Amino acid sequence: MAERINRQWRLVARPAGLIKDSDFEWVEEPVRSLEDGEVLVRNIYLSLDPANRGWVRKGPSYVEPVGIGEVMRGLTIGVVESSQNDLFSEGDIVAGTVGWQDYGISDGAGLRVIPPSPLPLTASLGLFGMVGLTAYFGLLDVGKPQDGETLVVSGAAGAVGSIVGQIGKIVGCRVVGIAGSDAKCAWLTDELGFDAAINYKTESVARKLHKHCPDGIDVIFENVGGEILDAELMWINNFARVVICGLISGYNATEPVPGPYGFRSVLVRRARIEGFIIFDYMERAPEAIQQLSEWYAEGRLKYRVDVYDGLETAPRNINRLFDGSHNGKLIIRVSDEP
Amino acid sequence: MAERINRQWRLVARPAGLIKDSDFEWVEEPVRSLEDGEVLVRNIYLSLDPANRGWVRKGPSYVEPVGIGEVMRGLTIGVVESSQNDLFSEGDIVAGTVGWQDYGISDGAGLRVIPPSPLPLTASLGLFGMVGLTAYFGLLDVGKPQDGETLVVSGAAGAVGSIVGQIGKIVGCRVVGIAGSDAKCAWLTDELGFDAAINYKTESVARKLHKHCPDGIDVIFENVGGEILDAELMWINNFARVVICGLISGYNATEPVPGPYGFRSVLVRRARIEGFIIFDYMERAPEAIQQLSEWYAEGRLKYRVDVYDGLETAPRNINRLFDGSHNGKLIIRVSDEP
Repeated sequence: MAERINRQWRLVARPAGLIKDSDFEWVEEPVRSLEDGEVLVRNIYLSLDPANRGWVRKGPSYVEPVGIGEVMRGLTIGVVESSQNDLFSEGDIVAGTVGWQDYGISDGAGLRVIPPSPLPLTASLGLFGMVGLTAYFGLLDVGKPQDGETLVVSGAAGAVGSIVGQIGKIVGCRVVGIAGSDAKCAWLTDELGFDAAINYKTESVARKLHKHCPDGIDVIFENVGGEILDAELMWINNFARVVICGLISGYNATEPVPGPYGFRSVLVRRARIEGFIIFDYMERAPEAIQQLSEWYAEGRLKYRVDVYDGLETAPRNINRLFDGSHNGKLIIRVSDEP
Repeated sequence: MAERINRQWRLVARPAGLIKDSDFEWVEEPVRSLEDGEVLVRNIYLSLDPANRGWVRKGPSYVEPVGIGEVMRGLTIGVVESSQNDLFSEGDIVAGTVGWQDYGISDGAGLRVIPPSPLPLTASLGLFGMVGLTAYFGLLDVGKPQDGETLVVSGAAGAVGSIVGQIGKIVGCRVVGIAGSDAKCAWLTDELGFDAAINYKTESVARKLHKHCPDGIDVIFENVGGEILDAELMWINNFARVVICGLISGYNATEPVPGPYGFRSVLVRRARIEGFIIFDYMERAPEAIQQLSEWYAEGRLKYRVDVYDGLETAPRNINRLFDGSHNGKLIIRVSDEP
């Protein structure tokens, strides 16, 4: 068999502001042979997620930052091309964190075999991957929405937000989404069943929230932060819960970012603001997958993916997460499905 | 009996910045006679609390703001001078919200008879009043400190903060206080048993917290907000709890106040920030009073009061809460104890 060449994006600079191609180095090198216990994975799909921006940031976070000179970290779906590990066989489809490269060699830790399924492979990076788990546990476990309450979701047309809003409807909430285009807003209300949607680029979020949440806001599922969160906090009810899933509006900031200006309402409304990281919930993943599968089979959950071709496009396509020029779960196709 | 004259401070302007005498009008008027079911209370002590500043602010809060032209709201201890209400007898000592005046007429709602006790009357505005309840429920119910954890208290030499820190020691925490003078810091460590204290006026709070919290911060009891909270959030551990009891640093602000700059750490540390208002806990007051009394009898809780004479001094003395020029629970003596 011909020697395999592994193309990689290696981090060479910590981005200031938006990620640039020049923050990475494109490296091509031969794939070495396997040692005992190792698995060779060929990446098929690479997930691009807002959290990636945090992983290249210096300073304390919930995981070690990617080191300078290291292959960029990223969630992936791949196929096992050869295996010296009894737990994996050639041809297995696996999910893992193989990173921004064609091939990865793993000792199997962190790799999970995806059983054959009628679903497209990309579903394992969307509804049935971290995205779905994040929506499920973040909303239900941290936000604890009750039947009849009002839920506001920012980044509502994003991969996580769109699922959050649909789960909110399933558990009986009035759901209002905030998104960045009229087309996205129409998708939320017409296709996903949101009660209302606000285009933050053309409308006053504060005024529209007041209009669309006549009984106030009980749960906020926050993906954005910044001025969006400021507006939301104006209308929270007593004992509101604010789930901090992401603060994407500040991820590319080059100056210190203030917290919400409505912070005083945390006190007067006895609100709870709580951050969460999906990795803390992985033991309970089967529960979520089971429930999401049922809802999906019943036609109560929809999702969409937005796939771009070519590993070489990863550094520029990741910025679609920050400018909103994507529709659904952002994925790079690294190689063809088997 | 000679006609009683009731001296009152009535709100005439919503303060901009610090409270000024001119935000109030001094009114003297005769006390009217009682109707059936009413009680006449002569105020003895008036409690001055940071929350008072919120009560004269326009806009939504957890209670209606004091109306323009109304007597300023305030917690009080008084004596019943006459009663047309079977639940109250002449000579009863009562706690209530009679306000910034010599006399109040009440239908009894919100008035509570204080049983005879060897404690000084002012204790009912301190350790065994709202202050003690706030410390007890805020720390134990919202903060949920565990044995061996590190607790940081801002406004630590204040009425609430000083009790919070002592309860923290009782439940086994390492306790670090932040206060505004070396004398206050010495009181915290030498008299109250805090493990360390930081003078925020002369020391770098961030650096000193790092030094005094070698295992990070698990619970923050926040009375101050602003830069103090920014510094604290730098060192929180995973799953830290941040009890928002007060945000006094912003109460006199005339511009919008940003939330904490370390807000991103809520996400990466999966922290919980939760506001609370003691009025939500009043049904459980007996539980707290019982426990605080036991600890006090065992010599494990100390508190101090700082009493100033004369209702006429209330508007200027309340600013001691904001410049720190008081020592212990701030109280105005309105008239003599019986």
